[in-house]
Amino acid sequence: MSETLDLARDLIRRRSVTPEDAGCQPLLAERLAPLGFRAEHLRFGEVDNLWLRKGTEGPVFCFAGHTDVVPTGPEANWSHPPFDAVVDDGVLHGRGTADMKGSIAAFVTACERFLTRHPEPRGSIAFLITSDEEGPAQDGTVKVVEHLEQRGEKVDWCLVGEPSSTSEVGDVVKNGRRGSLNGRLVVRGTQGHVAYPHLADNPIHHLAPALDALYRKVWDEGNEFFPPTTFQVSNIHGGTGATNVIPGEVEALVNFRFSTESSADELKKRVHAILDARNLNYSIDWSLSGDPFLTPRGALVEATVAAIRAETGREPDVNTAGGTSDGRFIAPTGAQVIELGPLNATIHKVNEQVRVEHLEELSAIYERILERLFGTDE
Amino acid sequence: MSETLDLARDLIRRRSVTPEDAGCQPLLAERLAPLGFRAEHLRFGEVDNLWLRKGTEGPVFCFAGHTDVVPTGPEANWSHPPFDAVVDDGVLHGRGTADMKGSIAAFVTACERFLTRHPEPRGSIAFLITSDEEGPAQDGTVKVVEHLEQRGEKVDWCLVGEPSSTSEVGDVVKNGRRGSLNGRLVVRGTQGHVAYPHLADNPIHHLAPALDALYRKVWDEGNEFFPPTTFQVSNIHGGTGATNVIPGEVEALVNFRFSTESSADELKKRVHAILDARNLNYSIDWSLSGDPFLTPRGALVEATVAAIRAETGREPDVNTAGGTSDGRFIAPTGAQVIELGPLNATIHKVNEQVRVEHLEELSAIYERILERLFGTDE
Ligand SMILES: [Zn+2]
Ligand SMILES: [Zn+2]
Repeated sequence: MSETLDLARDLIRRRSVTPEDAGCQPLLAERLAPLGFRAEHLRFGEVDNLWLRKGTEGPVFCFAGHTDVVPTGPEANWSHPPFDAVVDDGVLHGRGTADMKGSIAAFVTACERFLTRHPEPRGSIAFLITSDEEGPAQDGTVKVVEHLEQRGEKVDWCLVGEPSSTSEVGDVVKNGRRGSLNGRLVVRGTQGHVAYPHLADNPIHHLAPALDALYRKVWDEGNEFFPPTTFQVSNIHGGTGATNVIPGEVEALVNFRFSTESSADELKKRVHAILDARNLNYSIDWSLSGDPFLTPRGALVEATVAAIRAETGREPDVNTAGGTSDGRFIAPTGAQVIELGPLNATIHKVNEQVRVEHLEELSAIYERILERLFGTDE
Repeated sequence: MSETLDLARDLIRRRSVTPEDAGCQPLLAERLAPLGFRAEHLRFGEVDNLWLRKGTEGPVFCFAGHTDVVPTGPEANWSHPPFDAVVDDGVLHGRGTADMKGSIAAFVTACERFLTRHPEPRGSIAFLITSDEEGPAQDGTVKVVEHLEQRGEKVDWCLVGEPSSTSEVGDVVKNGRRGSLNGRLVVRGTQGHVAYPHLADNPIHHLAPALDALYRKVWDEGNEFFPPTTFQVSNIHGGTGATNVIPGEVEALVNFRFSTESSADELKKRVHAILDARNLNYSIDWSLSGDPFLTPRGALVEATVAAIRAETGREPDVNTAGGTSDGRFIAPTGAQVIELGPLNATIHKVNEQVRVEHLEELSAIYERILERLFGTDE
């Protein structure tokens, strides 16, 4: 079963640092064409996207993923060159091995084996591949989804190959994600000389207790599927650089990761209430990265859990922790969305790597999911 | 009495943007030589300083000031070119007119008139002129004072020409200044992803309530001569720029302006106590800009108040408010120090200016101070 490894290595050798695809998508389209996948190359802005579909009927199962990778940093810091796809002692080394060219290779080989046994499944199998997941994510999955919606094309089940696992393949799968809400808070005062504080009004002195109040606030308690909503300040900046000037304004970038117990609008209102109560002279620019989404127990979650159990004997933890993923764009269409991929320990770091046997295990699990949803074997 | 105006214009036309002197000090030395002032040109680092003295006996009265000026910003923003010294409707326009070439011109003409009438006063008259007051102030007055101390040369009375007045010449004189203590506070946490706040430790969330506590603290109540000690945060910076990263550390630049009721060491101890009580992981680099100093009522203050009263009919407010001045370097030698100069409304701004009649008034007041301390006229 070196097919998955071979394809993963071919993909890794293409230096597709975000938003580049570097020929990965044409490779996939060409590889899957003989199985009956019709390719649609969708370029939005500077971003290459690929929609592949075999079949015209529902239900539609879609593998979703990205070919772009994060930058490597200085390549000299890597134990193996990041685009050489070196296999050393059973480990495949390189940028994108875990996030997420390994998963894409496993998608393809799982499909190939499944379709060899079931050449015409009842339903469709699709691939939604972007090269803009690690970047701004504005011309990637979100645009492909819009494009599909415009022509009434629906996905029923979507498996995102993001590296969900922590210690063993399949120990964790994600059946949703928290929402993410960003705010740029600017508090205004009156600039002046530190020697004349009575003629100035220091906005840092107003912001400090307000941030403390926001930080201490319990926004919700979470629920069965979601941890409680959290508030964090990622950046804070104020001051002219001079040590004798009281600044006229100070800026804080804040972020909520929120559960389905709170809505973005509610959170905004509650923040404004806290700031208004303090008579702050402020403004906030809000930007919603994604609402929380959840795929409850149902055909896709059950098929995934059963496939992992059958292949590995493990009982996966199904949760919604972690950062956002492109699942946030697909879920609002009504699709069931689950995320399952390899270990995430090395992603976005130097010496990103994946065990070769894990790729094989993953491909086998993906194949079992297809069997459960479309096949007749169990 | 256009002598003061003429000399002020000569000085202003010399573009002595800090730390340049641009020939101002040689002009002063040459001008005062015929009256018996011996010149000592003291260059420290890149900075020109001038010590002029007439007489060998005590008491020593010293006029102190600076020839350097702050930058103009875009000259096109000025109503009159900043180095042309244009007189328009009784107002002299230009960089340094108020801070403080006008005062220096008034020093010189006051001296000239006084010495014409009293060619050999009992005591000495001196000038301490630097070109490093508006810059780092490390190679200016502080070095000249060290130089004088090393050879045992003492100043008894020092009049600094900084623009002390607010609405009318002589309405405010300064008989001291608050101390200034700077601190660079760094609070450390643990960097991480905003989606996993339990794996990180946000230092901004620790700093915010600590700053609030420092800001609310009453450090002292001040006293008869000093307003209460104040605490301000001039700059705050934290964050990587990314909105999904909890920063590993945050920095705040803090400043105390402090009265003689608190010492720098006491303030440091009290800050550490407040931060330690919160178990912050922090460090502070302290730097003391100057201890507070005060010249109580005595010969110099009395002569100055009486001279203002006699010349203008005004009763000056004698206080210690405002920013630091080079007086902080002279006072520790035991000298009495007072600051008296023109209106400070336009200093360090575009369209810096001074009324011509104010220069004349100032020169007359300075002359009266010399008369009161050395002369026989009243
Ligand atoms: Zn990824
Ligand atoms: Zn000045």
